[in-house]
Amino acid sequence: MFQINDHYQKLPGSYLFSTIAKKVSAFTQEHPDRNVIRLGIGDVTQPIVPAVIKALHQAVDEMADADSFRGYAPDLGYDFLRRAIADHDYRARGCEIQEDEIFISDGAKSDSGNIQEIFSAECRIAVTDPVYPVYIDSNVMAGRCGVYDSAAQMWSNVIYMPCTRENGFVPEFPKETPDLIYLCIPNNPTGTTITKTQLQAWVDYANEKGAVIIYDAAYEAYITQADVAHSIYECNGARTCAIEIRSFSKNAGFTGVRLGFTVVPKTLLCGEVSLHGMWARRHGTKYNGAPYIIQRAGEAVYSAAGQAQLKEQIARYMKNAAVIKEGLSAAGYEVYGGVNAPYIWLKTPGKMSSWEFFDYLLENANVVGTPGSGFGPCGEGYFRLTAFGSYENTVAALERIRAM
Amino acid sequence: MFQINDHYQKLPGSYLFSTIAKKVSAFTQEHPDRNVIRLGIGDVTQPIVPAVIKALHQAVDEMADADSFRGYAPDLGYDFLRRAIADHDYRARGCEIQEDEIFISDGAKSDSGNIQEIFSAECRIAVTDPVYPVYIDSNVMAGRCGVYDSAAQMWSNVIYMPCTRENGFVPEFPKETPDLIYLCIPNNPTGTTITKTQLQAWVDYANEKGAVIIYDAAYEAYITQADVAHSIYECNGARTCAIEIRSFSKNAGFTGVRLGFTVVPKTLLCGEVSLHGMWARRHGTKYNGAPYIIQRAGEAVYSAAGQAQLKEQIARYMKNAAVIKEGLSAAGYEVYGGVNAPYIWLKTPGKMSSWEFFDYLLENANVVGTPGSGFGPCGEGYFRLTAFGSYENTVAALERIRAM
Repeated sequence: MFQINDHYQKLPGSYLFSTIAKKVSAFTQEHPDRNVIRLGIGDVTQPIVPAVIKALHQAVDEMADADSFRGYAPDLGYDFLRRAIADHDYRARGCEIQEDEIFISDGAKSDSGNIQEIFSAECRIAVTDPVYPVYIDSNVMAGRCGVYDSAAQMWSNVIYMPCTRENGFVPEFPKETPDLIYLCIPNNPTGTTITKTQLQAWVDYANEKGAVIIYDAAYEAYITQADVAHSIYECNGARTCAIEIRSFSKNAGFTGVRLGFTVVPKTLLCGEVSLHGMWARRHGTKYNGAPYIIQRAGEAVYSAAGQAQLKEQIARYMKNAAVIKEGLSAAGYEVYGGVNAPYIWLKTPGKMSSWEFFDYLLENANVVGTPGSGFGPCGEGYFRLTAFGSYENTVAALERIRAM
Repeated sequence: MFQINDHYQKLPGSYLFSTIAKKVSAFTQEHPDRNVIRLGIGDVTQPIVPAVIKALHQAVDEMADADSFRGYAPDLGYDFLRRAIADHDYRARGCEIQEDEIFISDGAKSDSGNIQEIFSAECRIAVTDPVYPVYIDSNVMAGRCGVYDSAAQMWSNVIYMPCTRENGFVPEFPKETPDLIYLCIPNNPTGTTITKTQLQAWVDYANEKGAVIIYDAAYEAYITQADVAHSIYECNGARTCAIEIRSFSKNAGFTGVRLGFTVVPKTLLCGEVSLHGMWARRHGTKYNGAPYIIQRAGEAVYSAAGQAQLKEQIARYMKNAAVIKEGLSAAGYEVYGGVNAPYIWLKTPGKMSSWEFFDYLLENANVVGTPGSGFGPCGEGYFRLTAFGSYENTVAALERIRAM
């Protein structure tokens, strides 16, 4: 009789967004007259920019003609896209990353879930608390996390690095030595970041301890301050300790288009074994490349027109972030994030829990956000609002919050 | 110090198609005047049909407008596509499969590589020999296959089911009891199939032994004979023992478009644990859905216009298959497959090995095929030709072979 991977059975239910949906649905049924504004989920709302739409149509037409039709893509991505990425995201910032160190994929979620596969089941992971749940859940499935303590909301074999207002949301080196360190910077959910100097200290730490940093830079396009690194490869020594994961979801609105990439430097080794070679083998065996037309869309993101249009799109979201941040501050809230990221992380007033504040906000301002406790125990007492709504809705939401 | 997943180190190099490419490249450099015809790789050559192109353009336009823009897709796929699949591929054939048992993905290669994850590392797998290499390699990476004997080209912990002319390419129940049974029907690489009655015997066997069949039906659109099942769910009892993987690559030419799906019936259980729930959790954690515009393309495959156009496309490939099959037979070769699949599997003449025949064919007919030994030890002495070339090239290739 076959047996299942019983690590899956250890996972607690994933109820955060479904609980939110249920509560909102109950509220709107009870109050059909209220206009509920959703600033909860991290999905974008602005359409794909014209330069990318044009590239998509063009690529679709190529697929209609036998002479320009493209079948199987190269497993690791088309050269035209890898070159654009290497030029714009790395060489232009002085990072020594080559085209063939870039692996094109269908998105950062897949890559950040799959990357743990190339490491030993014995590796210990370290994550920030609060954290994007995929890092932990994918490691639970692989048997690395031990057992779950539902009261503490913590795994016995995971090293947690608290990020709270007490430490300025900057993770500290843990007491125990990790093998894999997940860092999402600028951070989801807190919207905060660390400086390039602080990141350099993490790179030095990883090289010293023989650890690998899985660096999730999905929000780098939102960075506005000069002392924040856009890539971990801006730090010295990152080529021997870091894997970087990037997304087109937030910098180009590709949440429904699906494109991302992962950088594995050829100099990242375990003894004599190249992690680059292992990830290439993983890609070649269990993946068959991103769609040709989507890769052409990705290329258009880097065109002059695409860059100009997307700069404007991001500015619109960041204008929302400023509206939220200033509005909350004026209303007396303690607010973090929103300067280098599209997320605002607020401290709930008094001793209110994250879920109590959720109910309070829904009831009194008809605004939906995300309870911080859904991202880990250190998220308790915090609350996330996103800048991905429309300007009009964002302004209206803040007016209601200030009027509460 | 971090450690790697050392199962990866057990994998022998994957040299089949790169060795072919090198040999062809050397030959064309030496003989720049010869026109080499490639009937080796399983990639399609005909463009995407008009009904699908139209749907792609339309979906791209929707993404350009804030009112019709689509962000994150449902993890498991859009309802419009799951409904079309349930109606056309299952209900129309009398199979009891519901929309929510269908998981949309970026292709059959990803799904057939990832599906093993939800099973215990202790499960023993059974594969046909010859076989599509992904089934074995993905299990090697997960540590299920034991050690590799490079002389025998076999893994110590894999159960092999030989498929040769001696047993009519019909796998026999193995002596040892497997937990997971991989069946690709119609078969890649042999192009042969088994009847519905023979498949029913496998379903009964799996239910009796408590095994799960991973059923790869990527080539079902090429079936021409009435006694061959298009889906394993045409067999009684399949809902308690079978997972079916499907592709749009070969039935709609989507090798570069990337779309597929996997069916996990809710009645497939291990004790009280639902494999459907596990696969949903895997999808929700490590995947973020196929692109919206690609899912609309998939929907168009099932439209009346799409079905008519694709019927014609498949007929063109199958006309090539007939040309190859008849041409080889007339030239005195022993030939299999090509009736319910786009692959022709020929016995090499005399005592010629698969690679000797490769060289012989390249040298004398300037035709490229795939050595059967690349798919497993029982592929030795066989050779694969594909029907995915153009009609003109296929006819020319066969004229040359007959003239050898």
